[in-house]
Amino acid sequence: MTVSFVGSGNVATHMAKAFYNAGFDILEICSSTAENAQLLASQVNADFLTNLSHLKPVDLLIISIKDDEIEKVLSEILLKDSLVVHTSGATALSILSGKFNNYGVFYPLQTFSKNTLVNFSEVPLCIEGCDFETTNKLLKIANTLSASVTEVNSNDRKQLHLAAVFTCNFTNHLFVIGSKILEKQNLPFQLLIPLITETVNKIKVANPEDVQTGPAIRNDKKVMESHLALLNGNPEWQEIYVLLSKSIKNQHSL
Amino acid sequence: MTVSFVGSGNVATHMAKAFYNAGFDILEICSSTAENAQLLASQVNADFLTNLSHLKPVDLLIISIKDDEIEKVLSEILLKDSLVVHTSGATALSILSGKFNNYGVFYPLQTFSKNTLVNFSEVPLCIEGCDFETTNKLLKIANTLSASVTEVNSNDRKQLHLAAVFTCNFTNHLFVIGSKILEKQNLPFQLLIPLITETVNKIKVANPEDVQTGPAIRNDKKVMESHLALLNGNPEWQEIYVLLSKSIKNQHSL
Repeated sequence: MTVSFVGSGNVATHMAKAFYNAGFDILEICSSTAENAQLLASQVNADFLTNLSHLKPVDLLIISIKDDEIEKVLSEILLKDSLVVHTSGATALSILSGKFNNYGVFYPLQTFSKNTLVNFSEVPLCIEGCDFETTNKLLKIANTLSASVTEVNSNDRKQLHLAAVFTCNFTNHLFVIGSKILEKQNLPFQLLIPLITETVNKIKVANPEDVQTGPAIRNDKKVMESHLALLNGNPEWQEIYVLLSKSIKNQHSL
Repeated sequence: MTVSFVGSGNVATHMAKAFYNAGFDILEICSSTAENAQLLASQVNADFLTNLSHLKPVDLLIISIKDDEIEKVLSEILLKDSLVVHTSGATALSILSGKFNNYGVFYPLQTFSKNTLVNFSEVPLCIEGCDFETTNKLLKIANTLSASVTEVNSNDRKQLHLAAVFTCNFTNHLFVIGSKILEKQNLPFQLLIPLITETVNKIKVANPEDVQTGPAIRNDKKVMESHLALLNGNPEWQEIYVLLSKSIKNQHSL
């Protein structure tokens, strides 16, 4: 089975390697940035190109690019008979409708950075197809890559993606703020790793709501005031502190 | 060496058990709630009491209660000659000054819930003493409990505690929001666990700033607008979404 990719960013890179390692034949990598396309192509033994209209017919074409750019890219792809999927959590299946005979969504619910290795067999793959047959075909392909495959419709996928932004992207930003606070004091960020690890270990076995700790849920006003004083000079972090503390209190007084 | 505790909450419970397991003789547990004091006392083979003025002289008295209550509790403790420490990240050493001959701080940088087991040997212990001799004594005790012991002054400890609120308490609240979004769709929270695990794995080897992902850092306006639309009816979570997205953008345009 042949597979081509449109895109050469974090998601495209990890997915192309996962397909390649699972024994799929990667045909082409198409990206507007020739160097990126060439780099990824060389890693999965594929050809590279920059012109979408030159893509060769293929069994599965995977479009893995910024959501904002999907619509424009679709208008340039001429492969009406290939099975075409996008990998976006936030974009509906319907964006592909009318342009291809067979289409679907192949959304990996994971955060990918180019230089970090991810065990793809543990990545939840959320699958949607334009019809029963296509869905089954995509589920079958997904099952060769990961042990966690779920059929998810466009509406649920958007909500999953939203939850992922809160629990991954926003969480990482809180880690950035923590690291900056320590950096200012010349304290190593490593000191926080056991705490962060335990925060995550807890929610693997308990409902996050049941293991909330800290001054906000205790309504420890003295501590919260002293923290806001420490954040003097950084009104943005003060605002985040106040808003998240208020939200914790509201959540637990429901 | 004998150790007594004032308090029977999450931190007191985990610390008393850690001292007990390390071979210390736990003498008394004092708490205003008799049942909690009795429960913890029974677990560490100690006596329990509710009246602070009845505490027996002891080698080390550990005060582990809400920050707001420390001052009041101190006025009732009559053990001028015992070594007395508190376990608070947010309270300065000086709160104990003038009340005891020897005093210090024994701050475990970890999140404790009563029903979760914590490997205490990995908990960073932040130590401060009123003088050189006391500091050394506390460092020696701490080293019998944990492999991660650091001398930290009151100012640095407050900043550490502030960073801990961002990276643990606020992070857990984002997990709560994620779980609520999925609950509404009848999707299992377990789907997010690989993502959350990977988010933390990344920052064990990389600077959190260097591994930020998501629509905010890509400035993917279309996705952010659709997320805000999904949050319609929950102005608080919309406000959190807007504020954290703005903060991510500001951090990365510095």
